Amino acid sequence: MGITSTENITRIEVNEEVSRFDVVDDVIVEYKLKLCVDGHDYGTILCSPEHLDNLVIGRLSSEGIIKTIDDIRSVNIDENQGIASVILNSERKPGLKHKIESGLSVKFEDILGLMKSLDARSTTFKKTGGVHGCALCDNEKIIAFDFDLGRHNAIDKIIGYAILNKVDLAKKIIAATCRISSEIISKIAQNGIPIISSRSAPTALAIKIARESGITLIGFAREKRMNIYSMPERVL
Amino acid sequence: MGITSTENITRIEVNEEVSRFDVVDDVIVEYKLKLCVDGHDYGTILCSPEHLDNLVIGRLSSEGIIKTIDDIRSVNIDENQGIASVILNSERKPGLKHKIESGLSVKFEDILGLMKSLDARSTTFKKTGGVHGCALCDNEKIIAFDFDLGRHNAIDKIIGYAILNKVDLAKKIIAATCRISSEIISKIAQNGIPIISSRSAPTALAIKIARESGITLIGFAREKRMNIYSMPERVL
Repeated sequence: MGITSTENITRIEVNEEVSRFDVVDDVIVEYKLKLCVDGHDYGTILCSPEHLDNLVIGRLSSEGIIKTIDDIRSVNIDENQGIASVILNSERKPGLKHKIESGLSVKFEDILGLMKSLDARSTTFKKTGGVHGCALCDNEKIIAFDFDLGRHNAIDKIIGYAILNKVDLAKKIIAATCRISSEIISKIAQNGIPIISSRSAPTALAIKIARESGITLIGFAREKRMNIYSMPERVL
Repeated sequence: MGITSTENITRIEVNEEVSRFDVVDDVIVEYKLKLCVDGHDYGTILCSPEHLDNLVIGRLSSEGIIKTIDDIRSVNIDENQGIASVILNSERKPGLKHKIESGLSVKFEDILGLMKSLDARSTTFKKTGGVHGCALCDNEKIIAFDFDLGRHNAIDKIIGYAILNKVDLAKKIIAATCRISSEIISKIAQNGIPIISSRSAPTALAIKIARESGITLIGFAREKRMNIYSMPERVL
């Protein structure tokens, strides 16, 4: 299934004259994925239909349902029906957020470099104007990139990737294009990630949670500037 | 309560030299409002803390819980506790979406004019980079404007305004800055609004729902162009 589809639309353009014509244009697909965990309904995710396994695993980790890939017996995704069925190895128990202890630090110019790489990867965003990009990074480069029409999903996909590939998130940086809300920063806290950097703004509640959790929260990270909202000592 | 707050942050700027300094900056507030209807928990809305009555009424209408203001006995909002308690006059019954029958039409230049007015009103967006603006319009002008950090909330606030003020939504246009997802267009359909125009992109599922519901869906409406994804005959 594609992440964009084509639609017949009408376009109006105003130049010296007004032109009105029919055209075929790309639009972003919004896919409904019903999530079932051990046979229980776990809600429906509206998402871009790619890397659905990463999305499901990341979502479960962000909600404290799993900690490692070993907590999962199986993930079965029926793309036609739009159903993801997960069987766990152990009883579900809500995870506890804890203060992040990480010795990770990063040079400011490396953050700006990562944001530039993120921009370069966000081609679907440019094409359809409809998705948020997100990258899992070490200090120098992007390790994995993903995107979704939902900000939450983009973050979950990249976290799911890390869990599937047993990447140690305590030594990684997330770079994102989207606004950082309380829900986004809670995912970062739940997964023990020490640094998140975004092109966009954080909310006041996200800043509060970042400070309480010991996360370095960077916003408006663009070509030549950034704002550091919490734990600035990790940025050299 | 303000819709922005100030935070002490660290800023890094790269010009001829690199400067790093502490600064007080505005950030967007994210407020938690718990919604109770007839004593039942109806979930928590993360929103900008302004026009909460409009937000609550619009949300109930968008979900088919109420049709007019007469369906509500009382709305009681405790801003300190973050709780909105609604008592209904009648039994809750889910509303049914129906095909929109509206004789409304609009000139394309009026749509472009409305989008320009919307941009001019979106000052908080420019200040903090964090909110979506939304306007209730007739063919010539903005009747009411609102915004929120959540796209869904901005739409609900403006719908709530219309219901409180008994505005006939079958003859109105919504102008928005945000992406049009299936959830947004469902709110438009549920409230019988014939035309929505956004600066941003719609999703494929939103286009499908707009076509099924008889809504004129306009996207990428900017200075000199627009895309019409459904019911273009309403745009002259």
